[in-house]
Amino acid sequence: MDSVVVEHIYLLVIVTIISVLQNAFFAQKVEREGKASNTHPTAFERVSCANRNCMDAYPTFLAVMWCAGLCLNQAPAAFAGILYLMVRQKYFIGYMGQTCQSTPGFLFGKRVIFFLILMCVVGIFNYLLARFYGDNYKEYVETITSAASALLLIP
Amino acid sequence: MDSVVVEHIYLLVIVTIISVLQNAFFAQKVEREGKASNTHPTAFERVSCANRNCMDAYPTFLAVMWCAGLCLNQAPAAFAGILYLMVRQKYFIGYMGQTCQSTPGFLFGKRVIFFLILMCVVGIFNYLLARFYGDNYKEYVETITSAASALLLIP
Amino acid sequence: MDSVVVEHIYLLVIVTIISVLQNAFFAQKVEREGKASNTHPTAFERVSCANRNCMDAYPTFLAVMWCAGLCLNQAPAAFAGILYLMVRQKYFIGYMGQTCQSTPGFLFGKRVIFFLILMCVVGIFNYLLARFYGDNYKEYVETITSAASALLLIP
Repeated sequence: MDSVVVEHIYLLVIVTIISVLQNAFFAQKVEREGKASNTHPTAFERVSCANRNCMDAYPTFLAVMWCAGLCLNQAPAAFAGILYLMVRQKYFIGYMGQTCQSTPGFLFGKRVIFFLILMCVVGIFNYLLARFYGDNYKEYVETITSAASALLLIP
Repeated sequence: MDSVVVEHIYLLVIVTIISVLQNAFFAQKVEREGKASNTHPTAFERVSCANRNCMDAYPTFLAVMWCAGLCLNQAPAAFAGILYLMVRQKYFIGYMGQTCQSTPGFLFGKRVIFFLILMCVVGIFNYLLARFYGDNYKEYVETITSAASALLLIP
Repeated sequence: MDSVVVEHIYLLVIVTIISVLQNAFFAQKVEREGKASNTHPTAFERVSCANRNCMDAYPTFLAVMWCAGLCLNQAPAAFAGILYLMVRQKYFIGYMGQTCQSTPGFLFGKRVIFFLILMCVVGIFNYLLARFYGDNYKEYVETITSAASALLLIP
């Protein structure tokens, strides 16, 4: 595809690649524990459970991040994506000590997902407003979104 | 991305957001049952199983819907997506009374998925025909598809 | 969407549809074994496990293939996708005789996924180089990639 398209999505692609590498890291962890599962069966179960929870939420995260990036602006969407990956990493590492609850992975990163959904909604409303009223508030909205994404850093 | 692109995908984005919200609803159900799993272990197992079946089929559904929307026309694809989400909701609610069979979630919404695959195939054939023969039947095909999507409503 | 977009993605769409049909085939296998699970409980468990491993890796595969196809060129990405689907088919069929290890599906197709990630990285570097230095090596890089994708055939 010509570089006009790549210009609008390259940050999203970078975040996607990082998330894929993280998936591979998780899978390797599970594989290693699986080989040692004769000695530590509970450790394998925990890692496998954490991995499943992460994988369950993965398509949802990808879909929301790409929608937000395509509808409004890729920079805040990619930033939120990076934050989500960091939260996921922390969740996966921290899961080792807990018992498997089989609760889906939506427990972590709720705020990031919510922010991305909000970005989608704002982008679509912005498009519809521009279509029916002729005015385009897009640049204004994009500036606010970029500023608001910094608020995600507050713990 | 400029509004030319958003114009062609905004319905798909809306359906994607609704599906994400539905995923969050399912996850919340599982979480709530997980907390009460000491009293009702079978109820938790059923909800968790229904959630897993839905999540298994989710990336397939998203991929087919977006392909169909990009290749042919977004309106019937989004309409079929909405129908799929309704069927999924019905499946999830109705699953409570059954035993977990661990059968994948492709049992429901087969017809909708098949319709979306057909849309993709028609779209690609249409593109190839237009490329090699020079004629573009696209508008004609789009009208037929929009009319055919109403047939999905027949139970 | 107009045919300019379809021109750049139709091979990716075809591979996606084939993967969806393969998913449906896997699901049908699981369903059939599930109905006969009273007589062969271990066979059902194995097929279900193989299916889950394949489904776990599916969104990752889709994301990487589409990113690679959008960033660089669709032909080698679709070719790698077809190879991945063949490896997956072989994995699923061959899994019947093994015990369920619950190891994620990243065990198979590692090389294909790695090649697709490399394509993404090369595509983004190419874009950034073209942006900051003004030269566009894209055609050159695409030729090399198409040639390199043949190396995947080496067992």
